[in-house]
Order: sequence, then structure tokens, then C-alpha cells
Amino acid sequence: MVSRSIRLAVIPGDGIGPEVVAEGLKVLDAVSGDLTFEQTSYDLGAARWHRTGETLPDSVLAELREQEVILLGAVGDPSVPSGTLERGLLLRTRFELDHYVNLRPVKLFPGVQTPLAGVTTDDIDMVVVREGTEGPYTGVGGVLRKGTAHEVATQESVNTAYGVERVIRYAFEVAASRPRKKLTLVHKDNVLTFAGDLYQRVLKRVGAEYPQISTDYVHVDAATMFFVNQPQRFDVVVTDNLFGDIITDIGAAIAGGIGLAASGNVNPDRTAPSMFEPVHGSAPDIAGQGKADPTATILSVAMLLDHIGEGDAARRVEQAVSDDLAERAGLGARSTSQVGDAIAKRVSG
Amino acid sequence: MVSRSIRLAVIPGDGIGPEVVAEGLKVLDAVSGDLTFEQTSYDLGAARWHRTGETLPDSVLAELREQEVILLGAVGDPSVPSGTLERGLLLRTRFELDHYVNLRPVKLFPGVQTPLAGVTTDDIDMVVVREGTEGPYTGVGGVLRKGTAHEVATQESVNTAYGVERVIRYAFEVAASRPRKKLTLVHKDNVLTFAGDLYQRVLKRVGAEYPQISTDYVHVDAATMFFVNQPQRFDVVVTDNLFGDIITDIGAAIAGGIGLAASGNVNPDRTAPSMFEPVHGSAPDIAGQGKADPTATILSVAMLLDHIGEGDAARRVEQAVSDDLAERAGLGARSTSQVGDAIAKRVSG
Ligand SMILES: CC(C)[C@H](C(=O)O)[C@@H](O)C(=O)O
Ligand SMILES: CC(C)[C@H](C(=O)O)[C@@H](O)C(=O)O
Repeated sequence: MVSRSIRLAVIPGDGIGPEVVAEGLKVLDAVSGDLTFEQTSYDLGAARWHRTGETLPDSVLAELREQEVILLGAVGDPSVPSGTLERGLLLRTRFELDHYVNLRPVKLFPGVQTPLAGVTTDDIDMVVVREGTEGPYTGVGGVLRKGTAHEVATQESVNTAYGVERVIRYAFEVAASRPRKKLTLVHKDNVLTFAGDLYQRVLKRVGAEYPQISTDYVHVDAATMFFVNQPQRFDVVVTDNLFGDIITDIGAAIAGGIGLAASGNVNPDRTAPSMFEPVHGSAPDIAGQGKADPTATILSVAMLLDHIGEGDAARRVEQAVSDDLAERAGLGARSTSQVGDAIAKRVSG
Repeated sequence: MVSRSIRLAVIPGDGIGPEVVAEGLKVLDAVSGDLTFEQTSYDLGAARWHRTGETLPDSVLAELREQEVILLGAVGDPSVPSGTLERGLLLRTRFELDHYVNLRPVKLFPGVQTPLAGVTTDDIDMVVVREGTEGPYTGVGGVLRKGTAHEVATQESVNTAYGVERVIRYAFEVAASRPRKKLTLVHKDNVLTFAGDLYQRVLKRVGAEYPQISTDYVHVDAATMFFVNQPQRFDVVVTDNLFGDIITDIGAAIAGGIGLAASGNVNPDRTAPSMFEPVHGSAPDIAGQGKADPTATILSVAMLLDHIGEGDAARRVEQAVSDDLAERAGLGARSTSQVGDAIAKRVSG
């Protein structure tokens, strides 16, 4: 095998971010073989903001653009005003690097406990394709007469044919690659009529090119209910940025918890590096105690490997995680690094 | 007891609406005693739209304003473009009659099956206070270059200090009336920073007047997860119009399904009649077959009775529903009217 070198940016971030990223890198190292990763670590997050007031300086963004792929832990800390790091660092990266697909598998692994009664691994196996660069996440909006009795605060959801078409097209491709060949649009077109109608028309138009895929539509409120009482209804789901944020947290809950939920912020056109991260946040309450579950980050590493064309390595990581999960119930509590060690050992063994 | 007469508007609506409303009225009649309801039925919904193109004519709206309270079944039909009746009839009524509190109890009754494993009736007992007259539901927004590759569709969430304060104040009052005295704000203030910050500041300011109520904050995505894996975390929840729509459907799912979820669109200032309705939709697939569960409507009738000051009657309806639910598991399938009959019999017996 020809050896290959990949430029990898690492953003450990805040709270449990550094701990889980360390385990992700441990597994990446164990699975790499001839593959080498030229790693650059970026100290973005709460500490840097406190020190310099910076969230994501333009110069760092320019450096990130030169990388091939990014691994992120988590950002956010109670000492920083809510939204500062989320908008200034995380969302800015997603928007600037045109991560228009936020890919979030929702899959119940064997041996993992779901809070739902009577549900098996066959019932929960879907992929959510969340739009990542528009909708209510644009930051468009403002505040008038702040702090007075006459204050008005607005938030605008901006949706374009360009943005909607590319994410729907991607979702059809994902559906085409899966056995069930089903794509469900989740929106709220009976209330958000302008945006919902755009999604519906594009789904129909692009769908004409995919006659083998069956499509349907579910309102977001009903979708959250179906996640809980009929999860087997879903195969591939395409949805807007905010609805995707919400339903993938329920997805995480039904598939065994946020400690297992992986995600990729993907730029399918490869005009900039994609970024992989666990769905969970920085969990400051348990940071530094070795209590965080690194599994979501390790599964995100598997997605990263897939993205860079290392499907075999990705499958090995997934299999190692799956085997580890199958035995967890019988093991006592393990620390963050013990879980990482165990999975790393499986992939190299 | 002095006899009392109440002007009640009834909007059966579409699909299963008329069927469930009939049972709600049956129970209302059975519990009324000296109370009489002067009923006026309005034929609003899909059929009228097909016939006349009208959703809610101004003249009908003017009549509704003269009523004391409204009972609604459900609106919406696949033969009508999505949003037409929802925006033109249901949301228009909520907005015009200033239903700024959308009150949605989430309560697991004894004997009812929840899809969650290991959860008891003590774990699920909350009230969601959903804002009803602003947020992303305003209909503000539009579409530019429709149908072209350059289409832009926007939806604007409009939030005012006036609107946010009145619903938060109401939520504090609800919390004050309950034993746990806890109020949770659900929003997404790390992304929707303008609106989220307004909600947070108002919560803090009004909260200073309620030192006995503990408050906390949960992001909407995390809230959906907690509904599934830690529902006991919630007592009273206050949230915006869209987030409230979403979380109350998960709420319905965990509390035994949409067939049991009641709601009130309340104008606490009583400048216009309030409107009570089941959370479920018109379910056209089962309409006319006597399969719909009228329980949500009957529980909405109990909320209606509470609103008009008939707390004793409301308690009797709730108790009858609770008793019926406790025995359901042992009974076979019952028709819509059989359920209504059974509950009506309990309240009068
Ligand atoms: C931290 C926050 C900005 C982010 C989001 O809302 O997208 C997170 O919830 C997620 O799902 O990745
Ligand atoms: C029918 C629809 C407009 C409505 C809403 O979104 O409010 C419904 O889902 C509800 O929850 O009452």
C-alpha cells in the first residue's frame, strides 16, 4: 500500500472536548497503518476568548482552509456569554467552510440500551441529513429598543433554491446507497409556508431524477413523536438546520444517548475541509474528571476516515466500537481513556 | 346553585374533528348540571374552503369574538394546499383572539402505556406554556424569484418584550400554583441570540418577583432529549411558539400518545374568547370510521371548564377520564362514541 499523508486540524475546544479528542486521536493512530496524519492543533475556545477576545481570527480560518480535514471536540463554557463561541467559532466554521451537509447517523448498536420499550437494533437505523449553512442559523436578525418595554427581537430564516437543492440532492444520494431507499423530508410547511414550499418543490423536482427512491413528508412536530413511537419509519431524513438540530438530539436519546452520537459537517464539493465532531457539547460539569464517553468522537473519527476515502479503516473503527458497546453492559464504569484504550486495542489487534 | 348560561362556539372542522367534538360535547352535557351552554356551530374548514374559498371570513371572526369560549376539533385536509387552513383559520383565530398562552399539560395517567421504559406516572407530570402569538409563527417573510435557481424564501421570527413578558408572567403563575415550583425556559439562545437573549432577560426580570420559584434554562435540542430520558426534570416549561409546537408532540408521545393530549389557546386577559382543542390533527386516514380517540378532546373540555370557572366540573371530567384510562388496557377496541359514552356515564353517574 502506498503511504499517504493527510493534513489534519485538531480543535479540542472546551470542557470535555480535549479529553474525548485525545481518545479519538488514539484510535485514529491505532488504525492508521501506512496512513500518516500531519496534525496541527488549534487552541480555539473559551480560554483563547478570555485571553484575547478572539473566537476565530481570520488568520486561523485561512490556515484551516489549507487543511484536508478537521476534528473538533466541543466548544462552549458558562464563563463565556451564550452564543459567543457557538456563533463566533463553531457556526462560523460551518458557514465559512461551506459545510452544507450536517450528517448525523442515528443507529442503535447491539447491546446498547435505548430508553424506548420493546425496540430493537433493526428499528433504529437512519441517517439525518441536516442542512448546515442557512435556515434560522444565518444570524440574520436584530434587536430594536433593547431593554425597553418596546423591545423587538427578530431572527430570520433564509433559505435559497441553491442551498436547498444541494442538500436535498446529497440526501437522495445517501438514500440511493442504502437498502431501504426511502427519503423523508421533515419541515413545518403548514406554518413556515415560504421555506416549506421551497423544500417541497425542490424535493419533487430532484426526486424525479431518483425514481427508485420513495419520498415522504412529515411535519417536524410529528417527526419528534415518530422518533419515539415509530422510529422504524425513518431511513434517510433531510431537514433544515434548526429542525435537524432538534431531531438529532432525540435521535441521540433513542439510540443510547448523546455519548454515542457522531456527526460530520461535510462540504461535499471539497472546496474546503470538512469537520467531524461529536454531537454532544462541552459538558463543563464533568470536564477533567475522565468521565466523558469518547465513543461519539471515535465514531466521528470513523466518519472522517470515510470522508478521506479510507473506508476500510472506517469500517474497522466502527466494528471495534460495535464490539466494545456489545460488551459494555457487563463491564463496570470505565474512564474516558480506558474506553479509548479498549477501542484502540481492538482496531490494532 | 344559580344556573348559568355560557355562549359556546363549536368548530368541528375536518377529518376526525366532528367525531371527537361530538364526544366532547356529550361529556360536557353530562357534567353540566345547572350550567347550560348556548351552542353555535361554525362550518369552518376544508368543505367551506372548497365551496366558497373562505377560511375565516371577517364576519365569522366578529361572531366568534362575541362568544365566551370556543371548542375546536381539528382543521386540515390533503385536498387543501398545506398551510391554507392552518394559517388562514387556526393560526388566524389564535392571533386575532390574542391567544398568547398555548397551555399544554403533559401528564402520564395511571394505566396508560408510555413508550419509555421504566417510567412511572410520577416521572411525567408537567405543563408546557407555549407562546401563541409571535415567534416564527407570525407569517412574516416571503419569497423572491420563486421557482428559479435564484429563489430566496424567508421566515421571520418576531419577538417582543410585550409578548414575551406576558407569557413568562403567566408561566410563573402556573409554577406558583404547583407543588414543585420550578420553571424551565426552553429556547436556543446560543444560536437565536436576539430572541433568546430577550427571553432570558425577561425571565430574570420577572423571576425577581417570584423568589419562591426556581428557574432554569435548557436548549431546545437538549430538552427533546430530556423529555425522552429524564422527563422528571420538568415541572412548568415556558417556550416560544415553534419550540412549544415541537416539544409538546414529544410530550404527547411520552405521555401515551397524541390521542390523549389536550390544549387550550388561552387569552388570560379575557379580551376575547379562549379556544380549547386536542393537540392532534384531523387524521383524514381514519376519519368517519369511529376509530379516533376522543379523550384528548374530552380533556380539552375539562380545560375549558376550568377556564370558565367551573373547576368542580373540570375535576369530575378529569377523574372520569383517569378512571376510564386505568381500565382501558383490559377492554378491547372501542369506537369513538363508545369511549365518549363510557366517560359521559362516569361523570353523570
Ligand atoms: C452548539 C450549537 C451551536 C450546535 C448547533 O445548534 O448546531 C449543537 O447543538 C449541534 O447540534 O452541533
Ligand atoms: C396545525 C398546526 C398549525 C398547529 C401548530 O403548529 O401550532 C398544530 O401542530 C398544533 O400544535 O396545534
